[in-house]
Amino acid sequence: MSSFSPGVFGFTDTPTAEIDRLESFYGPLAESVRRLVDVTIRTDVDEETIRRATAEIEAITAQLEKQVAEGPAGVHFNTDGRSWQWGNAAVGLRNAVAPPMEVRVEDGVARAEVVLGAAYEGPPGMVHGGISALLLDHLMGVTASTTNPERRRPTMTGTLTLRYRRPTPLGRVRLEGWIEREEDVKTFVRATIGDEEGTTIEAEGVWIVPRWARERFAPRDPAA
Amino acid sequence: MSSFSPGVFGFTDTPTAEIDRLESFYGPLAESVRRLVDVTIRTDVDEETIRRATAEIEAITAQLEKQVAEGPAGVHFNTDGRSWQWGNAAVGLRNAVAPPMEVRVEDGVARAEVVLGAAYEGPPGMVHGGISALLLDHLMGVTASTTNPERRRPTMTGTLTLRYRRPTPLGRVRLEGWIEREEDVKTFVRATIGDEEGTTIEAEGVWIVPRWARERFAPRDPAA
Repeated sequence: MSSFSPGVFGFTDTPTAEIDRLESFYGPLAESVRRLVDVTIRTDVDEETIRRATAEIEAITAQLEKQVAEGPAGVHFNTDGRSWQWGNAAVGLRNAVAPPMEVRVEDGVARAEVVLGAAYEGPPGMVHGGISALLLDHLMGVTASTTNPERRRPTMTGTLTLRYRRPTPLGRVRLEGWIEREEDVKTFVRATIGDEEGTTIEAEGVWIVPRWARERFAPRDPAA
Repeated sequence: MSSFSPGVFGFTDTPTAEIDRLESFYGPLAESVRRLVDVTIRTDVDEETIRRATAEIEAITAQLEKQVAEGPAGVHFNTDGRSWQWGNAAVGLRNAVAPPMEVRVEDGVARAEVVLGAAYEGPPGMVHGGISALLLDHLMGVTASTTNPERRRPTMTGTLTLRYRRPTPLGRVRLEGWIEREEDVKTFVRATIGDEEGTTIEAEGVWIVPRWARERFAPRDPAA
Protein backbone atom coordinates (compact mmCIF):
# COMPACT_ATOMS: atom_id res chain seq x y z
CA MET A 1 0.00 0.00 0.00
CA SER A 2 2.67 2.43 -1.17
CA SER A 3 0.21 5.31 -1.38
CA PHE A 4 -0.15 5.48 2.41
CA SER A 5 1.39 8.70 3.66
CA PRO A 6 4.48 7.97 5.74
CA GLY A 7 3.86 7.96 9.46
CA VAL A 8 0.09 7.59 9.38
CA PHE A 9 0.04 3.80 9.70
CA GLY A 10 1.97 1.61 12.01
CA PHE A 11 3.43 0.83 15.38
CA THR A 12 4.55 3.61 17.72
CA ASP A 13 6.10 3.48 21.17
CA THR A 14 3.48 5.84 22.68
CA PRO A 15 2.51 4.24 26.02
CA THR A 16 -1.11 3.23 26.62
CA ALA A 17 -1.34 5.63 29.61
CA GLU A 18 -0.46 8.53 27.30
CA ILE A 19 -3.14 7.46 24.79
CA ASP A 20 -5.67 7.34 27.65
CA ARG A 21 -4.59 10.81 28.79
CA LEU A 22 -4.96 12.27 25.28
CA GLU A 23 -8.37 10.62 24.83
CA SER A 24 -9.55 12.16 28.14
CA PHE A 25 -9.63 15.61 26.50
CA TYR A 26 -9.79 14.79 22.76
CA GLY A 27 -13.01 12.81 23.38
CA PRO A 28 -14.92 15.65 25.10
CA LEU A 29 -13.71 18.13 22.43
CA ALA A 30 -15.14 15.98 19.64
CA GLU A 31 -18.36 15.41 21.62
CA SER A 32 -18.83 19.17 21.95
CA VAL A 33 -18.32 19.50 18.18
CA ARG A 34 -20.92 16.76 17.54
CA ARG A 35 -23.50 18.74 19.57
CA LEU A 36 -22.55 21.88 17.60
CA VAL A 37 -22.99 20.02 14.29
CA ASP A 38 -26.48 18.97 15.39
CA VAL A 39 -27.58 22.44 16.55
CA THR A 40 -26.08 24.03 13.39
CA ILE A 41 -28.72 22.10 11.45
CA ARG A 42 -31.62 22.80 13.82
CA THR A 43 -31.06 26.29 15.25
CA ASP A 44 -33.72 28.92 14.62
CA VAL A 45 -32.06 31.89 16.34
CA ASP A 46 -31.73 35.27 14.60
CA GLU A 47 -29.17 36.23 11.96
CA GLU A 48 -27.04 38.28 14.33
CA THR A 49 -26.62 35.41 16.79
CA ILE A 50 -25.70 33.06 13.92
CA ARG A 51 -23.12 35.49 12.54
CA ARG A 52 -21.60 36.01 16.00
CA ALA A 53 -21.42 32.23 16.54
CA THR A 54 -19.72 31.84 13.16
CA ALA A 55 -17.02 34.36 14.13
CA GLU A 56 -16.54 32.69 17.51
CA ILE A 57 -16.17 29.26 15.91
CA GLU A 58 -13.56 30.68 13.54
CA ALA A 59 -11.63 32.09 16.50
CA ILE A 60 -11.63 28.68 18.24
CA THR A 61 -10.46 27.00 15.02
CA ALA A 62 -7.61 29.51 14.78
CA GLN A 63 -6.52 28.62 18.34
CA LEU A 64 -6.60 24.89 17.62
CA GLU A 65 -4.79 25.41 14.31
CA LYS A 66 -1.73 26.95 15.98
CA GLN A 67 -0.22 23.50 16.12
CA VAL A 68 -1.61 20.77 13.86
CA ALA A 69 -0.54 17.43 12.48
CA GLU A 70 0.09 17.39 8.75
CA GLY A 71 -2.43 15.22 6.96
CA PRO A 72 -5.07 12.88 8.32
CA ALA A 73 -4.99 11.00 11.64
CA GLY A 74 -4.12 7.53 10.32
CA VAL A 75 -4.25 4.21 12.16
CA HIS A 76 -1.82 3.45 14.97
CA PHE A 77 -0.85 0.59 17.25
CA ASN A 78 1.45 0.46 20.24
CA THR A 79 3.44 -2.41 21.64
CA ASP A 80 0.64 -3.22 24.18
CA GLY A 81 -1.64 -4.03 21.24
CA ARG A 82 -3.67 -0.86 21.83
CA SER A 83 -4.87 0.63 18.52
CA TRP A 84 -6.41 3.99 17.71
CA GLN A 85 -7.82 5.52 14.55
CA TRP A 86 -9.08 8.83 15.89
CA GLY A 87 -9.99 10.28 12.49
CA ASN A 88 -12.02 7.34 11.19
CA ALA A 89 -15.30 8.51 9.58
CA ALA A 90 -17.35 5.76 11.27
CA VAL A 91 -15.65 5.17 14.63
CA GLY A 92 -13.09 7.95 15.15
CA LEU A 93 -13.05 9.33 18.72
CA ARG A 94 -11.87 12.74 17.46
CA ASN A 95 -14.05 12.83 14.33
CA ALA A 96 -17.38 14.66 14.71
CA VAL A 97 -18.51 13.18 11.36
CA ALA A 98 -18.52 9.77 13.11
CA PRO A 99 -21.45 9.12 15.52
CA PRO A 100 -18.99 7.43 16.67
CA MET A 101 -20.02 3.79 16.35
CA GLU A 102 -18.55 1.35 18.90
CA VAL A 103 -18.27 -2.21 17.65
CA ARG A 104 -18.28 -5.12 20.16
CA VAL A 105 -17.19 -8.57 19.06
CA GLU A 106 -18.53 -11.58 20.97
CA ASP A 107 -19.05 -15.23 20.02
CA GLY A 108 -18.23 -14.61 16.38
CA VAL A 109 -20.69 -11.73 15.96
CA ALA A 110 -19.86 -8.04 15.65
CA ARG A 111 -22.54 -5.78 17.11
CA ALA A 112 -23.10 -2.06 17.40
CA GLU A 113 -25.87 0.17 18.64
CA VAL A 114 -25.86 3.85 17.75
CA VAL A 115 -28.25 6.80 18.01
CA LEU A 116 -28.42 8.75 14.74
CA GLY A 117 -29.67 12.34 14.94
CA ALA A 118 -30.41 15.15 12.49
CA ALA A 119 -26.90 15.06 10.98
CA TYR A 120 -27.50 11.61 9.47
CA GLU A 121 -30.72 12.39 7.59
CA GLY A 122 -31.50 11.43 4.00
CA PRO A 123 -35.22 11.07 3.26
CA PRO A 124 -37.21 13.25 5.70
CA GLY A 125 -36.94 11.80 9.20
CA MET A 126 -34.97 8.80 7.92
CA VAL A 127 -31.34 7.74 8.07
CA HIS A 128 -29.53 8.51 4.78
CA GLY A 129 -29.15 5.20 2.92
CA GLY A 130 -25.49 6.06 2.44
CA ILE A 131 -24.95 6.55 6.19
CA SER A 132 -26.32 3.06 6.74
CA ALA A 133 -23.88 1.90 4.05
CA LEU A 134 -21.01 3.65 5.89
CA LEU A 135 -21.83 1.97 9.20
CA LEU A 136 -22.43 -1.44 7.59
CA ASP A 137 -19.20 -1.24 5.58
CA HIS A 138 -17.22 -0.43 8.70
CA LEU A 139 -18.86 -3.06 10.91
CA MET A 140 -18.41 -5.69 8.19
CA GLY A 141 -14.71 -4.81 7.91
CA VAL A 142 -14.35 -5.34 11.68
CA THR A 143 -16.29 -8.60 11.29
CA ALA A 144 -13.95 -9.84 8.56
CA SER A 145 -10.81 -8.81 10.43
CA THR A 146 -11.56 -9.84 14.01
CA THR A 147 -14.52 -12.19 14.61
CA ASN A 148 -12.59 -15.36 13.78
CA PRO A 149 -10.15 -15.57 16.71
CA GLU A 150 -7.84 -17.90 14.72
CA ARG A 151 -7.57 -15.53 11.80
CA ARG A 152 -7.35 -11.89 12.90
CA ARG A 153 -5.93 -9.88 10.01
CA PRO A 154 -6.25 -6.60 8.12
CA THR A 155 -8.89 -6.63 5.35
CA MET A 156 -10.22 -4.16 2.79
CA THR A 157 -13.69 -4.04 1.23
CA GLY A 158 -13.77 -5.95 -2.08
CA THR A 159 -17.48 -5.83 -2.88
CA LEU A 160 -20.49 -4.70 -0.88
CA THR A 161 -24.16 -5.26 -1.73
CA LEU A 162 -26.99 -3.63 0.19
CA ARG A 163 -30.70 -4.51 -0.01
CA TYR A 164 -32.91 -1.73 1.30
CA ARG A 165 -36.08 -3.38 2.61
CA ARG A 166 -37.63 -0.27 4.13
CA PRO A 167 -36.47 3.16 5.32
CA THR A 168 -34.51 3.29 8.60
CA PRO A 169 -35.98 5.93 10.96
CA LEU A 170 -33.57 8.33 12.67
CA GLY A 171 -33.00 7.36 16.29
CA ARG A 172 -31.52 4.18 17.73
CA VAL A 173 -30.26 1.63 15.20
CA ARG A 174 -28.68 -1.78 15.74
CA LEU A 175 -26.15 -3.53 13.52
CA GLU A 176 -24.96 -7.13 13.45
CA GLY A 177 -22.30 -8.75 11.28
CA TRP A 178 -20.99 -12.30 10.97
CA ILE A 179 -18.67 -14.30 8.73
CA GLU A 180 -20.45 -16.52 6.23
CA ARG A 181 -17.31 -18.29 5.00
CA GLU A 182 -13.59 -17.79 4.37
CA GLU A 183 -11.55 -18.72 1.31
CA ASP A 184 -7.82 -18.01 1.35
CA VAL A 185 -7.46 -14.19 1.39
CA LYS A 186 -11.23 -13.60 1.04
CA THR A 187 -13.76 -13.38 3.84
CA PHE A 188 -17.50 -13.43 2.96
CA VAL A 189 -19.49 -11.34 5.42
CA ARG A 190 -23.19 -10.73 6.05
CA ALA A 191 -24.74 -7.98 8.16
CA THR A 192 -27.97 -6.18 8.96
CA ILE A 193 -28.99 -2.79 10.25
CA GLY A 194 -32.40 -2.17 11.75
CA ASP A 195 -34.65 -0.55 14.31
CA GLU A 196 -36.81 -1.97 17.11
CA GLU A 197 -39.15 -3.52 14.58
CA GLY A 198 -36.43 -5.49 12.82
CA THR A 199 -34.08 -5.39 9.87
CA THR A 200 -34.27 -2.44 7.50
CA ILE A 201 -31.23 -3.21 5.30
CA GLU A 202 -29.43 -6.50 4.55
CA ALA A 203 -25.82 -6.45 3.42
CA GLU A 204 -23.33 -8.95 2.08
CA GLY A 205 -19.82 -8.52 0.80
CA VAL A 206 -16.30 -9.78 0.37
CA TRP A 207 -13.35 -8.51 2.40
CA ILE A 208 -9.84 -9.13 1.14
CA VAL A 209 -6.47 -9.23 2.92
CA PRO A 210 -4.44 -6.49 1.18
CA ARG A 211 -1.26 -7.55 -0.63
CA TRP A 212 1.05 -5.82 1.87
CA ALA A 213 -0.43 -7.92 4.70
CA ARG A 214 -0.54 -11.31 2.99
CA GLU A 215 2.90 -12.55 3.97
CA ARG A 216 2.53 -11.60 7.61
CA PHE A 217 -1.12 -12.64 7.97
CA ALA A 218 -1.23 -15.53 5.47
CA PRO A 219 -3.80 -18.19 6.33
CA ARG A 220 -2.14 -21.30 7.70
CA ASP A 221 -2.21 -24.21 5.29
CA PRO A 222 -4.09 -26.92 7.22
CA ALA A 223 -2.13 -29.60 5.29
CA ALA A 224 1.25 -28.14 6.17
CA MET B 1 -44.44 6.96 3.92
CA SER B 2 -46.52 7.32 7.07
CA SER B 3 -43.45 7.29 9.33
CA PHE B 4 -42.32 10.71 8.03
CA SER B 5 -42.59 13.20 10.87
CA PRO B 6 -45.26 15.76 10.12
CA GLY B 7 -43.96 18.99 8.66
CA VAL B 8 -40.56 17.77 7.59
CA PHE B 9 -41.50 16.95 4.00
CA GLY B 10 -43.46 19.02 1.58
CA PHE B 11 -44.37 22.29 -0.01
CA THR B 12 -44.18 25.54 1.94
CA ASP B 13 -44.97 29.10 0.93
CA THR B 14 -41.55 30.41 2.03
CA PRO B 15 -40.44 32.74 -0.80
CA THR B 16 -37.20 31.98 -2.65
CA ALA B 17 -35.72 35.33 -1.55
CA GLU B 18 -36.17 34.31 2.09
CA ILE B 19 -34.47 30.94 1.44
CA ASP B 20 -31.55 32.81 -0.18
CA ARG B 21 -31.36 35.16 2.83
CA LEU B 22 -31.29 32.26 5.31
CA GLU B 23 -28.65 30.41 3.28
CA SER B 24 -26.45 33.55 3.28
CA PHE B 25 -25.72 33.00 7.00
CA TYR B 26 -26.56 29.31 7.52
CA GLY B 27 -23.98 28.40 4.84
CA PRO B 28 -21.05 30.26 6.46
CA LEU B 29 -22.01 28.87 9.91
CA ALA B 30 -21.82 25.28 8.63
CA GLU B 31 -18.58 26.03 6.76
CA SER B 32 -17.01 27.27 10.00
CA VAL B 33 -18.16 24.07 11.73
CA ARG B 34 -16.61 21.96 8.92
CA ARG B 35 -13.24 23.64 9.51
CA LEU B 36 -13.63 23.03 13.25
CA VAL B 37 -14.41 19.33 12.62
CA ASP B 38 -11.21 19.05 10.56
CA VAL B 39 -8.97 20.79 13.13
CA THR B 40 -10.55 18.79 15.99
CA ILE B 41 -9.00 15.72 14.37
CA ARG B 42 -5.62 17.28 13.58
CA THR B 43 -4.87 19.72 16.40
CA ASP B 44 -1.76 19.15 18.48
CA VAL B 45 -2.14 22.06 20.96
CA ASP B 46 -1.83 21.52 24.72
CA GLU B 47 -4.51 20.10 27.01
CA GLU B 48 -5.46 23.46 28.51
CA THR B 49 -6.16 25.00 25.11
CA ILE B 50 -8.24 21.95 24.15
CA ARG B 51 -10.27 22.12 27.37
CA ARG B 52 -10.87 25.86 26.94
CA ALA B 53 -11.97 25.32 23.31
CA THR B 54 -14.38 22.59 24.47
CA ALA B 55 -16.00 24.97 27.00
CA GLU B 56 -16.25 27.73 24.38
CA ILE B 57 -17.87 25.38 21.87
CA GLU B 58 -20.40 24.34 24.53
CA ALA B 59 -21.21 28.02 25.18
CA ILE B 60 -21.82 28.63 21.46
CA THR B 61 -24.04 25.53 21.27
CA ALA B 62 -26.06 26.85 24.23
CA GLN B 63 -26.62 30.15 22.38
CA LEU B 64 -27.74 28.40 19.20
CA GLU B 65 -29.96 26.02 21.19
CA LYS B 66 -32.05 28.85 22.63
CA GLN B 67 -34.43 28.42 19.73
CA VAL B 68 -34.33 25.17 17.73
CA ALA B 69 -36.57 23.26 15.37
CA GLU B 70 -37.91 20.02 16.77
CA GLY B 71 -36.53 17.04 14.90
CA PRO B 72 -34.42 16.86 11.75
CA ALA B 73 -34.36 19.38 8.90
CA GLY B 74 -36.42 17.43 6.35
CA VAL B 75 -36.88 18.11 2.65
CA HIS B 76 -38.81 21.16 1.47
CA PHE B 77 -40.07 22.71 -1.76
CA ASN B 78 -41.66 26.06 -2.45
CA THR B 79 -44.07 27.08 -5.17
CA ASP B 80 -41.17 28.37 -7.35
CA GLY B 81 -39.83 24.82 -7.53
CA ARG B 82 -36.92 25.68 -5.24
CA SER B 83 -36.04 22.76 -2.97
CA TRP B 84 -33.80 22.54 0.08
CA GLN B 85 -32.67 19.67 2.32
CA TRP B 86 -30.28 21.50 4.61
CA GLY B 87 -29.70 18.56 6.95
CA ASN B 88 -28.89 15.95 4.30
CA ALA B 89 -25.83 13.89 5.25
CA ALA B 90 -24.34 14.06 1.73
CA VAL B 91 -25.43 17.44 0.36
CA GLY B 92 -26.94 19.45 3.24
CA LEU B 93 -25.87 23.12 3.28
CA ARG B 94 -26.27 23.28 7.08
CA ASN B 95 -24.82 19.83 7.81
CA ALA B 96 -21.11 19.75 8.70
CA VAL B 97 -21.13 15.96 8.27
CA ALA B 98 -21.74 16.58 4.53
CA PRO B 99 -18.68 17.75 2.51
CA PRO B 100 -21.22 19.02 1.06
CA MET B 101 -21.34 17.39 -2.37
CA GLU B 102 -22.91 19.44 -5.20
CA VAL B 103 -24.43 17.35 -7.96
CA ARG B 104 -24.73 18.80 -11.49
CA VAL B 105 -26.95 17.11 -14.07
CA GLU B 106 -26.18 17.61 -17.76
CA ASP B 107 -26.91 15.55 -20.87
CA GLY B 108 -28.22 12.62 -18.87
CA VAL B 109 -25.19 12.38 -16.59
CA ALA B 110 -24.99 13.39 -12.92
CA ARG B 111 -21.54 14.62 -11.90
CA ALA B 112 -19.89 15.81 -8.71
CA GLU B 113 -16.42 16.79 -7.65
CA VAL B 114 -15.58 17.06 -3.98
CA VAL B 115 -12.45 17.46 -1.86
CA LEU B 116 -12.39 14.98 1.05
CA GLY B 117 -10.18 15.84 4.02
CA ALA B 118 -9.17 14.20 7.30
CA ALA B 119 -12.80 13.78 8.44
CA TYR B 120 -13.50 11.24 5.68
CA GLU B 121 -10.63 8.84 6.40
CA GLY B 122 -10.91 5.06 6.62
CA PRO B 123 -7.66 3.21 5.82
CA PRO B 124 -4.69 5.50 6.56
CA GLY B 125 -4.64 8.38 4.07
CA MET B 126 -7.60 6.91 2.17
CA VAL B 127 -11.29 7.76 1.87
CA HIS B 128 -13.41 5.47 4.08
CA GLY B 129 -15.08 2.95 1.77
CA GLY B 130 -18.37 3.78 3.47
CA ILE B 131 -17.99 7.50 2.72
CA SER B 132 -17.57 6.61 -0.96
CA ALA B 133 -20.73 4.50 -0.58
CA LEU B 134 -22.56 7.49 0.96
CA LEU B 135 -21.60 9.81 -1.90
CA LEU B 136 -22.32 7.20 -4.59
CA ASP B 137 -25.70 6.31 -3.05
CA HIS B 138 -26.70 9.97 -3.00
CA LEU B 139 -25.46 10.76 -6.52
CA MET B 140 -27.18 7.65 -7.89
CA GLY B 141 -30.45 8.70 -6.24
CA VAL B 142 -30.18 12.08 -7.97
CA THR B 143 -29.36 10.24 -11.21
CA ALA B 144 -32.45 8.04 -10.91
CA SER B 145 -34.73 10.93 -9.99
CA THR B 146 -33.60 13.70 -12.34
CA THR B 147 -31.38 12.75 -15.30
CA ASN B 148 -34.25 11.62 -17.52
CA PRO B 149 -36.01 14.93 -18.25
CA GLU B 150 -39.21 13.09 -19.20
CA ARG B 151 -39.39 11.16 -15.97
CA ARG B 152 -38.37 13.28 -12.98
CA ARG B 153 -39.70 11.60 -9.85
CA PRO B 154 -38.86 10.72 -6.24
CA THR B 155 -36.94 7.46 -5.85
CA MET B 156 -35.51 5.45 -2.95
CA THR B 157 -32.53 3.08 -3.01
CA GLY B 158 -33.65 -0.52 -3.61
CA THR B 159 -30.30 -2.27 -3.97
CA LEU B 160 -26.76 -0.95 -4.23
CA THR B 161 -23.64 -2.94 -5.17
CA LEU B 162 -20.15 -1.49 -4.93
CA ARG B 163 -16.95 -2.97 -6.40
CA TYR B 164 -13.84 -1.59 -4.74
CA ARG B 165 -11.06 -1.76 -7.35
CA ARG B 166 -8.43 0.08 -5.33
CA PRO B 167 -8.31 2.49 -2.37
CA THR B 168 -9.44 6.08 -3.01
CA PRO B 169 -6.86 8.57 -1.72
CA LEU B 170 -8.10 11.51 0.38
CA GLY B 171 -8.19 14.70 -1.69
CA ARG B 172 -10.18 15.53 -4.80
CA VAL B 173 -12.58 12.83 -6.01
CA ARG B 174 -14.93 12.78 -8.98
CA LEU B 175 -18.25 10.97 -9.32
CA GLU B 176 -20.39 10.21 -12.37
CA GLY B 177 -23.77 8.51 -12.53
CA TRP B 178 -26.05 7.55 -15.41
CA ILE B 179 -29.25 5.59 -16.03
CA GLU B 180 -28.69 2.16 -17.54
CA ARG B 181 -32.39 1.40 -18.10
CA GLU B 182 -35.87 2.02 -16.67
CA GLU B 183 -38.65 -0.49 -16.03
CA ASP B 184 -41.95 0.80 -14.65
CA VAL B 185 -41.20 2.04 -11.10
CA LYS B 186 -37.56 0.85 -11.19
CA THR B 187 -34.55 2.77 -12.47
CA PHE B 188 -31.26 0.89 -12.95
CA VAL B 189 -28.31 3.20 -12.31
CA ARG B 190 -24.54 2.90 -12.71
CA ALA B 191 -21.88 5.17 -11.24
CA THR B 192 -18.20 5.53 -10.52
CA ILE B 193 -16.01 7.40 -8.08
CA GLY B 194 -12.34 7.99 -8.70
CA ASP B 195 -9.28 10.17 -8.56
CA GLU B 196 -7.08 11.72 -11.26
CA GLU B 197 -5.81 8.29 -12.27
CA GLY B 198 -9.27 6.87 -12.93
CA THR B 199 -12.05 4.87 -11.33
CA THR B 200 -11.50 3.48 -7.85
CA ILE B 201 -15.02 2.11 -7.17
CA GLU B 202 -17.78 0.98 -9.54
CA ALA B 203 -21.40 0.98 -8.40
CA GLU B 204 -24.71 -0.27 -9.72
CA GLY B 205 -28.13 -0.32 -8.17
CA VAL B 206 -31.87 -0.09 -8.49
CA TRP B 207 -33.86 2.97 -7.43
CA ILE B 208 -37.59 2.61 -6.85
CA VAL B 209 -40.43 5.15 -6.89
CA PRO B 210 -41.90 4.92 -3.37
CA ARG B 211 -45.55 3.86 -3.06
CA TRP B 212 -46.73 7.28 -1.90
CA ALA B 213 -45.37 8.84 -5.11
CA ARG B 214 -46.55 6.27 -7.63
CA GLU B 215 -49.92 7.79 -8.42
CA ARG B 216 -48.58 11.29 -8.89
CA PHE B 217 -45.37 10.28 -10.69
CA ALA B 218 -46.59 7.14 -12.48
CA PRO B 219 -44.73 6.41 -15.70
CA ARG B 220 -46.84 7.22 -18.73
CA ASP B 221 -48.05 4.13 -20.54
CA PRO B 222 -46.62 4.56 -24.06
CA ALA B 223 -49.57 2.57 -25.49
CA ALA B 224 -52.18 4.82 -23.82
